[in-house]
Amino acid sequence: MAMSWHDGSAAVATLTFDVDAETPILARGRRYADHLTTMSHQGYGPGVGVPRILGLLDELAVPATFFVPGWVAQRRPELVATIAGHGHEIAHHTYSHRAPTSLDPFEERTDFERGLAVFEKQGIEISGYRAALWEAGRNTYGLLAEHGLLYDSSLMGDDRPYLLNVGESTIVELPVHWSLDDWEQYAFLPEPDVGSVIESPRKVLELWRAELDGMRHYRCLFNLCMHPFLTGRPGRMLALRELIEYALSCGDVRFARCREVAAAALADADVRKAPLPEVDADPAVYPD
Amino acid sequence: MAMSWHDGSAAVATLTFDVDAETPILARGRRYADHLTTMSHQGYGPGVGVPRILGLLDELAVPATFFVPGWVAQRRPELVATIAGHGHEIAHHTYSHRAPTSLDPFEERTDFERGLAVFEKQGIEISGYRAALWEAGRNTYGLLAEHGLLYDSSLMGDDRPYLLNVGESTIVELPVHWSLDDWEQYAFLPEPDVGSVIESPRKVLELWRAELDGMRHYRCLFNLCMHPFLTGRPGRMLALRELIEYALSCGDVRFARCREVAAAALADADVRKAPLPEVDADPAVYPD
Amino acid sequence: MAMSWHDGSAAVATLTFDVDAETPILARGRRYADHLTTMSHQGYGPGVGVPRILGLLDELAVPATFFVPGWVAQRRPELVATIAGHGHEIAHHTYSHRAPTSLDPFEERTDFERGLAVFEKQGIEISGYRAALWEAGRNTYGLLAEHGLLYDSSLMGDDRPYLLNVGESTIVELPVHWSLDDWEQYAFLPEPDVGSVIESPRKVLELWRAELDGMRHYRCLFNLCMHPFLTGRPGRMLALRELIEYALSCGDVRFARCREVAAAALADADVRKAPLPEVDADPAVYPD
Amino acid sequence: MAMSWHDGSAAVATLTFDVDAETPILARGRRYADHLTTMSHQGYGPGVGVPRILGLLDELAVPATFFVPGWVAQRRPELVATIAGHGHEIAHHTYSHRAPTSLDPFEERTDFERGLAVFEKQGIEISGYRAALWEAGRNTYGLLAEHGLLYDSSLMGDDRPYLLNVGESTIVELPVHWSLDDWEQYAFLPEPDVGSVIESPRKVLELWRAELDGMRHYRCLFNLCMHPFLTGRPGRMLALRELIEYALSCGDVRFARCREVAAAALADADVRKAPLPEVDADPAVYPD
Repeated sequence: MAMSWHDGSAAVATLTFDVDAETPILARGRRYADHLTTMSHQGYGPGVGVPRILGLLDELAVPATFFVPGWVAQRRPELVATIAGHGHEIAHHTYSHRAPTSLDPFEERTDFERGLAVFEKQGIEISGYRAALWEAGRNTYGLLAEHGLLYDSSLMGDDRPYLLNVGESTIVELPVHWSLDDWEQYAFLPEPDVGSVIESPRKVLELWRAELDGMRHYRCLFNLCMHPFLTGRPGRMLALRELIEYALSCGDVRFARCREVAAAALADADVRKAPLPEVDADPAVYPD
Repeated sequence: MAMSWHDGSAAVATLTFDVDAETPILARGRRYADHLTTMSHQGYGPGVGVPRILGLLDELAVPATFFVPGWVAQRRPELVATIAGHGHEIAHHTYSHRAPTSLDPFEERTDFERGLAVFEKQGIEISGYRAALWEAGRNTYGLLAEHGLLYDSSLMGDDRPYLLNVGESTIVELPVHWSLDDWEQYAFLPEPDVGSVIESPRKVLELWRAELDGMRHYRCLFNLCMHPFLTGRPGRMLALRELIEYALSCGDVRFARCREVAAAALADADVRKAPLPEVDADPAVYPD
Repeated sequence: MAMSWHDGSAAVATLTFDVDAETPILARGRRYADHLTTMSHQGYGPGVGVPRILGLLDELAVPATFFVPGWVAQRRPELVATIAGHGHEIAHHTYSHRAPTSLDPFEERTDFERGLAVFEKQGIEISGYRAALWEAGRNTYGLLAEHGLLYDSSLMGDDRPYLLNVGESTIVELPVHWSLDDWEQYAFLPEPDVGSVIESPRKVLELWRAELDGMRHYRCLFNLCMHPFLTGRPGRMLALRELIEYALSCGDVRFARCREVAAAALADADVRKAPLPEVDADPAVYPD
Repeated sequence: MAMSWHDGSAAVATLTFDVDAETPILARGRRYADHLTTMSHQGYGPGVGVPRILGLLDELAVPATFFVPGWVAQRRPELVATIAGHGHEIAHHTYSHRAPTSLDPFEERTDFERGLAVFEKQGIEISGYRAALWEAGRNTYGLLAEHGLLYDSSLMGDDRPYLLNVGESTIVELPVHWSLDDWEQYAFLPEPDVGSVIESPRKVLELWRAELDGMRHYRCLFNLCMHPFLTGRPGRMLALRELIEYALSCGDVRFARCREVAAAALADADVRKAPLPEVDADPAVYPD
């Protein structure tokens, strides 16, 4: 019997945490370093959210994947070691959390490699990557191929793993989606604008549970993205606990680290192969 | 007994899908062609959403109408043939998904006719039209009349079909409304701004069911607009299934293709006739 | 026993409808006159919404007050006569629906008096006024006093009627509030920006019912503002029906026209008297 | 047995009210002083909201803390005395409600000390401070230390009290969070932009109750911030009553004034000590 990426389960769940800390705000302007409330709001992520999340994952015995900007790992030298020590995967999330689409090729390469170097120095093996803001650009995948990464988790072309042909390399895509991200549900700051409506954890649980049920129906990858500075809050943690307990109670959902799903997808002959999105838009029809 | 557009049912339901794919984003700037995540997010519509939607419609045996920009049909030559092969109607949705109100008369004509030519070349008969962004302009209806289209579905002057006098022609209007559109409920991108709140499918089902019940009370046209890149997601598909099953269970809702409703409305002497909106605004009161 | 504005009921409900039609959009730019969808969306108000609302009010036998911009009444000469024929009150809502705070004193006077002249010509007696966008300005109340109006309904300084001292005149204020307005719940247009989230009628019913219950607790004026182009939609009409039926079932809510409440408040010695808001802000602390 | 900040309860609840009145709007531009509706909307806070809130707190016998801008206390000389007379704490909330991050050091000092002088003149003892907009800056804590304040309530680095080392002083931080603030849930104005979605009190109750339950689980400080011009509305007052009654019914939630919690935290050897957020961001990576 052939290998399959889902191994017979109705849906595979990858719990992922983007440990962004201060980076998404600093990327909007260095001046925010002097906005102490905002900095403390972001610092809450690694400081309070991560330990609380590690505790919950331990308690429920489910594995997860933590995407960490190199800048964050560098500034808190014990952070990724602690996470890895709990058995979770660490993955690359740029160095500075600036969107690849906002950088020129040299800047993107510098940022990408600077991030990799941090993890190498800390003795952490990296298999996967997620673009900051999920804004992968034209040059991103060449970097992944060049550095031999197994998978990316930034695109939205499907809701099951698929294989990207990048030159002569193959990179597994573990697709994300805006509806499976806590940012759109919870993020609020007076400045810079990161969102304006703070939803109730009850609504978020309802949304994610509906998506999980849909994904069990269609046999998909439930690739959930959370941020410790958002989901680490007490009421939201209880909702996450309820979601995981629901998924466990279904009996047909398998929890896995991204790296394991990617490896299984690569070995599964039925997984769809796809080129990177190539859109040739006529400037006469679509001006810049 | 005279012909009536509703044929005795309490409400008529036209399920419509605007297969926009990349076009609404490219219309905001060709540069987005290099935002790979965004392009993959849009490509999910025809790639994953459409097959899933066709499967659901087959299973529940309800017909639908797909509004397709010519650019999308041209780029994926098998797309509209596949949809039509399932028994659904294909209708015209501009060539490039640029809003008619943003084009001069020559540009709008060029775009309109370029779209028609794509469908003609693919052997698809077109009876109806929907403006991009539902932004019909002063010149739009002359084009529809000149090309002999039966109906339009872009205006909001009523919630039952009505007849537009355009010169010596009559065009059936099958009105839409922002509250019966999945875009306002589900669309989110970091850039360009297409919406900022992602609602739960439960809320959307509640909203649409309330409108369907209201329309059954007032005998209206439940003209629902969805986008495969939005509604094609797993959890939202389950909600759509639940909505259709609810409508079927009512026993007084008839599902139809737009073309059939338009033909019936044209033959119904009780259907209201209306001029195009003519608003003569005094520049001294209302400056540009 | 002395007259009281509430006449012993726990709350008084004034259902008010702002029949704005095209005016709020034209006030954002005359160019929108060529956006046919938007114009049809606004024209739905007097065309479809008003008859439907009149039918519901007849059926439930509750009175209401319709605030109409003079421009709208002028353009549809039979509109206010029809509404008044159903026993409802007509009130002044500026001529053009431009915010008084955006006009200089001469422009505001011209607009105000032009609106009054329309109603005089149509033989409609006017007792009250509501500023466009509820943006009353420094010169608004002098105009009301000069023209002998009984009441205003644009301020938010209380949730019970109160009396404004304007020179030697007294004007009754029937306060409004953003939470008792359908605009913030339902309004959406791609352009101009009038709101971005379309709520479910179920949520709106929940919000308004909670406020009605609170107002019954604190003995307030439930001064609800709706727009026929918004609330006139089928599903929202069912929710409005449910709200009115709930209020009627309470047994302690009295429905009245604004004019009646204002007259009762003027005769009630216990009603609070208040000056217009005078805020003397130091330019050194608060620059323009 | 050692002193603990929570004294054995599962969560400590500090009900706090920011009595901002007109200040947040004037800080956006002095011109808004002539927007009478907006001024009345803000004046409702001290005029109607505060007495109603005092009544509810009396009835349920729970203490609270009121953060008042000096400008507001100066303009309504009896306001803070009345609040204090009901047994509640008064705390400092800047003079003008301009964000510290928007002021230079001299402006911030002037504003800070001008606020303190108002309270001193009114014979009110001040122990704590909250920055306007919760936008504490680099110079804020030096001012607090210099003037001997016991606590601050503007940061978000934890959800339990913690101790800030400021030079040789220690200041207790009672952290806030955007999700425990009524502003994001209820605030709406057409101009200036203060929020765009008006939530139902039912949703807000659900959100806050979920957070309270989470905080009971993790033993946190439920530091709730409300604004009398927002929460003082009738339906929202009923929801607040329900929240407090729920908390009381839990049996493990202690209500306290901020000053008491701060004093207990200072005496609790287990409370975490933390430096102010120091973020050294490389200008080459993060430009201004």
